[in-house]
This record gives sequence, structure tokens and C-alpha cells, in this order.
Amino acid sequence: MTSQLPALVTVLTLLLLFATLTMVGRARSRYGIKAPAISGDPAFERVWRVQMNTLESAVMFIPALWLAAQYADPLWAGIAGLIWLAARIWYALAYSRDAARRGPAFLLSLAAWAALMLMAAGGIGLAIMENNAP
Amino acid sequence: MTSQLPALVTVLTLLLLFATLTMVGRARSRYGIKAPAISGDPAFERVWRVQMNTLESAVMFIPALWLAAQYADPLWAGIAGLIWLAARIWYALAYSRDAARRGPAFLLSLAAWAALMLMAAGGIGLAIMENNAP
Amino acid sequence: MTSQLPALVTVLTLLLLFATLTMVGRARSRYGIKAPAISGDPAFERVWRVQMNTLESAVMFIPALWLAAQYADPLWAGIAGLIWLAARIWYALAYSRDAARRGPAFLLSLAAWAALMLMAAGGIGLAIMENNAP
Repeated sequence: MTSQLPALVTVLTLLLLFATLTMVGRARSRYGIKAPAISGDPAFERVWRVQMNTLESAVMFIPALWLAAQYADPLWAGIAGLIWLAARIWYALAYSRDAARRGPAFLLSLAAWAALMLMAAGGIGLAIMENNAP
Repeated sequence: MTSQLPALVTVLTLLLLFATLTMVGRARSRYGIKAPAISGDPAFERVWRVQMNTLESAVMFIPALWLAAQYADPLWAGIAGLIWLAARIWYALAYSRDAARRGPAFLLSLAAWAALMLMAAGGIGLAIMENNAP
Repeated sequence: MTSQLPALVTVLTLLLLFATLTMVGRARSRYGIKAPAISGDPAFERVWRVQMNTLESAVMFIPALWLAAQYADPLWAGIAGLIWLAARIWYALAYSRDAARRGPAFLLSLAAWAALMLMAAGGIGLAIMENNAP
């Protein structure tokens, strides 16, 4: 299980991206916002921002997850990844209801991402020092 | 060829992203939409949405392609990847002319992506079971 | 150091994405643009476009960096990656002040990306020919 955890978390992240895309499609028909428009109703705009913010954060997350798995530890990277994923689901649900409530979920996802970045940076730093050791 | 197919499909996907970015740049000058504006003419907005939708779908596609190649089979992953790529080129051409015509190309790209996700999920599931076998 | 350079460049790219996200958050409060709005003040819109353009280009960059590292050379890929990174930092600073000044930084980042794509395509082409050799 351990070594497959980052792969599993990645698959679940791609499903989350697909879910936010589906939410935008449904909001388009519910609020009558025809493509290519991306504004016209605050409820539609929130759902669209959820999709974009999830996309932005996934681009920051997936490479961090794999670098942490590769250079530090796949189990701990996977656990931080699961926390990030739970925080992003919470964020999507909270923001699509009320923009003012997106803060705590965002901060939790940021903390999980920061943990992955520290694992990655620490692991890469160690690998560089070992390679340069006399 | 087989084992380089996912790499080749990835290079072609990056070229598609570059092509959609170039389309937005040309549409900016053709329709007189100066940066940072992203609205003002429906034809410009369609091309901008093509770029954003291609970006969103590429973020979902590239990890799915490589997980399917790694955990299932690089040849079948590469073939599904080529179908996705053809569907996204069709989508870009259809949507930039008429937003109402983007449906079929979107569904084909979605089917190719779903095939990659099933390969990836199946392969990861098998790997987890084998690791946990007594 | 050589073989860890692409990993290091990736970590720095993720930090750049985080920096552009932070710039948008600060611009939201400075110019009073409440989420989910993404327009209302040209200075806010420039910072938001910087974030989106950095995201787009990072999605094109990270896979190109790793394919070039894998199929050509990690040192040269890492050097092209550092040039891309410097160009994108220059782009973010220039565009957030004045949209008309984003051109030269964009072209430099494009040249670095093109170099990575040529390394990747060349390396993949060689690998395909070697596999098919009689």
C-alpha cells in the first residue's frame, strides 16, 4: 500500500478536478450562463472560481507530492496528500456556498502543501549534499 | 516505440497548449482586446475559453496518462492518449468557431480520459493487492 | 548536484506559483475586489493575469523539463529551467506594473521552453530509433 499511496492520491485529485468541472457545467445550465461567458451570477462565479482555484492548487500539489514521495518518504507524502485532498473537498463545498467561508479550508490545504514542500526540499538538499560529499 | 509513446503524446500535448496560447495572442490583436482584459468580444472569449479548457483538461490528462502507462500498459495508455489529443484538437477548432458545437469533441476527450483513469485505477488496485498478499 | 537540478527547479517553480497566488490575495484586499470577482481594477486584473499566465506556462514547463532531463540531459535541462524561472519572475514583476512591458520576459521564457522541447523531442526521437534498430 505504502508505495502506491501517492499514485492513489493522484487519481483521487484528478477525480476532484473532474468533479469541479462538472459543478461548473451544471451551474452553467442552472443559472443560464452560456459558454463562453464566465460571469453573470455570483453563484455561478463562485463555482467557476472553485474550479480555477482547485486547478491552480492541483498544479502546485501534484509535483510536490511526487517530489516528497521520491526524495523523502512515500507514506508520509501520501498522508499529507490525503489531508490536502480532504481540505480541497472542504474548500470546494464551503466556497461554492459562501465565498467568505473558504478561509479555513484553504489554510489547511496550504499547511499540507507546505509539509510536502518541506519534505521535498529537505530530501533534495540531502541528496545534493550526499552527491557532493568527498 | 511502445515505451516512448506516452512521452511523445506528452510533447504533442504541450505543443497543443502552446497553440491555444498563440490563438489567444492573435485574437487579442485581431479583436483589439488589450491585456489584462479577457472579455469584450465573443470571438475572443471563445478562444480564451478554449485555452483555459485545454489547460484544465491537460492537468487532468498528463498525470492520468503516466499513471496508466506505469501501472497498466504504455502502449494502450499511449493509444488512449492519441485519441484524447485528437479530440482536444477537434474541440479547439469547433469551440473557437461556435460554442454550441463543442459537445461531441468534449465527450470524446472525456471517454479517452476515463479509459486512462480506469487503466490507472485498475493497475494501482492490483499493485496494492499484490503488495498485501500473504 | 546535476541529477537533482530538475527537482530543485521544480520546487522553485512551485514557490513561484505560490508567490503569484499570494500577490492575487494581497491585490484583492488592496483594491477591494472581493472573491469571486476577478475584475474591477486594472491593477488587480494585471496581477490576476500574471497568476493565470504563470500557471499556464508552468503546466507547459514542468513536463518539458522532466522529459528533457530524462531523454536528453538533466544538467542542460536544469540550466534551461533556471533561465525559464528567471524569465517568469521578470515577467511577473514587469506585467504586474505595466501590461505593455511583459513582452521581452515572455519571449525569454518561451526560448527556454523551446530549448527544453527540442531536447525532449530529440531525445525521444533517438530512443524510438534505437528501439527500432535491426
